[in-house]
Amino acid sequence: MTQLNEATRGNITAEMKEIATREELPIDKLRSLVATGRVVIPFNPIHSPKPVGIGEGLRIKINANIGSSADISNLDEELEKARTAKKYGADTVMDLSTGGDINAIRRKILEETDLPLGTVPIYQAAIEAIDRHGSIVDMSTDDLFNSIREHAKEGVDFVTVHCGVTKESLEKLKGAHRIGGVVSRGGSFLVAWILHNDKENPLYAEYDYLLELAKEYDFTLSLGDGLRPGAIADGSDKPQIQETIILGELVRRARKNGVQSMVEGPGHLPLNQIEANVRMEKSLCNGAPFYVLGPLVTDIAPGYDHITGAIGGALAGWLGADFLCYVTPSEHLGLPTKEDVRQGVIASKIAAHSADIARGKDLSVDREMSLARSSLDWEKQLSRAIDPEFARQFRKDRVPADEETCTMCGGLCAIKITKKFLKGEK
Amino acid sequence: MTQLNEATRGNITAEMKEIATREELPIDKLRSLVATGRVVIPFNPIHSPKPVGIGEGLRIKINANIGSSADISNLDEELEKARTAKKYGADTVMDLSTGGDINAIRRKILEETDLPLGTVPIYQAAIEAIDRHGSIVDMSTDDLFNSIREHAKEGVDFVTVHCGVTKESLEKLKGAHRIGGVVSRGGSFLVAWILHNDKENPLYAEYDYLLELAKEYDFTLSLGDGLRPGAIADGSDKPQIQETIILGELVRRARKNGVQSMVEGPGHLPLNQIEANVRMEKSLCNGAPFYVLGPLVTDIAPGYDHITGAIGGALAGWLGADFLCYVTPSEHLGLPTKEDVRQGVIASKIAAHSADIARGKDLSVDREMSLARSSLDWEKQLSRAIDPEFARQFRKDRVPADEETCTMCGGLCAIKITKKFLKGEK
Repeated sequence: MTQLNEATRGNITAEMKEIATREELPIDKLRSLVATGRVVIPFNPIHSPKPVGIGEGLRIKINANIGSSADISNLDEELEKARTAKKYGADTVMDLSTGGDINAIRRKILEETDLPLGTVPIYQAAIEAIDRHGSIVDMSTDDLFNSIREHAKEGVDFVTVHCGVTKESLEKLKGAHRIGGVVSRGGSFLVAWILHNDKENPLYAEYDYLLELAKEYDFTLSLGDGLRPGAIADGSDKPQIQETIILGELVRRARKNGVQSMVEGPGHLPLNQIEANVRMEKSLCNGAPFYVLGPLVTDIAPGYDHITGAIGGALAGWLGADFLCYVTPSEHLGLPTKEDVRQGVIASKIAAHSADIARGKDLSVDREMSLARSSLDWEKQLSRAIDPEFARQFRKDRVPADEETCTMCGGLCAIKITKKFLKGEK
Repeated sequence: MTQLNEATRGNITAEMKEIATREELPIDKLRSLVATGRVVIPFNPIHSPKPVGIGEGLRIKINANIGSSADISNLDEELEKARTAKKYGADTVMDLSTGGDINAIRRKILEETDLPLGTVPIYQAAIEAIDRHGSIVDMSTDDLFNSIREHAKEGVDFVTVHCGVTKESLEKLKGAHRIGGVVSRGGSFLVAWILHNDKENPLYAEYDYLLELAKEYDFTLSLGDGLRPGAIADGSDKPQIQETIILGELVRRARKNGVQSMVEGPGHLPLNQIEANVRMEKSLCNGAPFYVLGPLVTDIAPGYDHITGAIGGALAGWLGADFLCYVTPSEHLGLPTKEDVRQGVIASKIAAHSADIARGKDLSVDREMSLARSSLDWEKQLSRAIDPEFARQFRKDRVPADEETCTMCGGLCAIKITKKFLKGEK
């Protein structure tokens, strides 16, 4: 039985209990959110990670994408990335490996991490199709489902499935005159496959079979946005919205079958379209958890897209997105290193936390930090910082003459001066 | 005659002409915005910088704070910071020096930079008061105005004057039970001065004299927010709003006297208070340009406050703030280095640009970047990036086997695949 099945029947699982406690939510409230599909718990019992709830009423979660590529593949480096992601506060990890021994990498990460792990099984199916037949378009429906089953059997907790790239949405793509085209890898594989074979997307045509698999292993479907905009100019265009409409229908079918699902979203969006995108997803997909990649609020910042992603993610999170996929400085430039993972997780964490604050959650950590500041308690300031090591090193590098202050203000410290004179001393 | 005087009389200055062209605004529209005080041009003819317009209908501008401190003072380093700020796109610079030979630093920066330069003359007055009399509170009204006059005479284009820290706003501060207290240096000096001397703030009591000076040299008043919140918990509290009410009255008096003025704003604010703060400033201050410091949307990220500031700045800018003061990674930790200046300017530039996009401005650069991406034109992508050197180095460090792609996707490049199959090839 899936978490959704249990919740529907009024049962409370150990995972729900743990999440309710951590999120300070009444357990019945959480159970009902899981039962209605507004909260998902990506928890494959074979992997049995630390339970994490994603969706309405919960703290915003962040995901870190790691994984090898054809150009750069190193198992140890990927394990280091998984550890880094966890250390800096990622709630989940996705292994997007496409190079080297991708089975070994996935298995090792699953073995090691207690964060829920997501994958995109079509990557493996596509690579194997190229190896065997020379082209992605020769991938068979069986190849694709075999990959999904293999991942599920090994314990993968959630999978991205681009079920909304269909003949129908492709028609909208052809008429859209996009600037940025298709930027989702899985999306592009299926666009190619549908066009070449003149057949419907297997993930859509055989969706019932996908649901059977998902139910068997209780992996959560992350309904992929294969047609997400990859340029500001393409934000909220027809193919994107058409795909979301289809995904909304698939959410309903998943729920009816006791399968947990969430919906992926953009991508590149100007600031003034973020609210509409969140409201639209929540409406079209009946409150399904919304998992956004960024959104990136400008196209021009390769090298700094962790910042463009944090801006969009903070706004999206505040307005109702539930799950932020981090973006690293290497976005649009190359495969992220461990250091990129660190930067990406911290930026995404800042976005999620500032959105939580705006939604009235988690205010105590900011309060504590500010009290430490106003009492000039540096040890507490450093230990409570989002990245204590970094803050501590920073201060070691710039030692002030008066250790109550910093090298910015020294004796002109506003806090010190106001304190003294509000007390009436000279 | 000030720019405001000229505009009121229907005259178009050379500076207005240059700005109108650069901002693609009809010159009469710009003149009228200057005449009503909704746009300021911080342009002291003695310095004669590159003219920059700040306010309604214009692109959002960003400021970089540089300057020495008692702990760290090095003229060459400060000049390097000024150059760095300009290189990465700062529109103005403020010299906040408080250590070493601050006169020499200011003069040298004025000599070298063609960006409008701002200062906070009370810093100098306070330091001299400490040197001469032992305490900030012994600063005389003459000391303070002498500093302002000295800066103006040397060509400073705008000055922060904390005129709204008055006996009245102090009463509100006393009853506010703030977590973060007073975090503005100038604000704290005046709080101390008022309490110790039991006299009104000279910048408020002698505001008419300040206006005379401003008119004589046509420096722009940046009406400082000495009581801005320095903690999320203090956002939009009584002392902050009381000060803004006072500043709104001072804006009216400045305009009546032909003096250009803008209004400074927070500081630390949760995401859900930013819109209210922008609307309130625009209403209370009759459309005066709004100059925000951040806002920082969480307290817990020392070392990464350029990111928290970019999140708040993007939202504020989109909703109507006109001028973003950058925040660097060293905020809350120490004096920024040249590298911090670089990081701060880029983050702030991303915020301003993404806000401009959301306001329908400057869309062509994003379009061009996205077209370069979808045509796999890497040279163009790198040269159009917000930091081309960084992007170029990045790509040099991670060379893909197929130079049309990157080390992330290699042969699985979504753009390449979609292109090929939308054209019908295999």
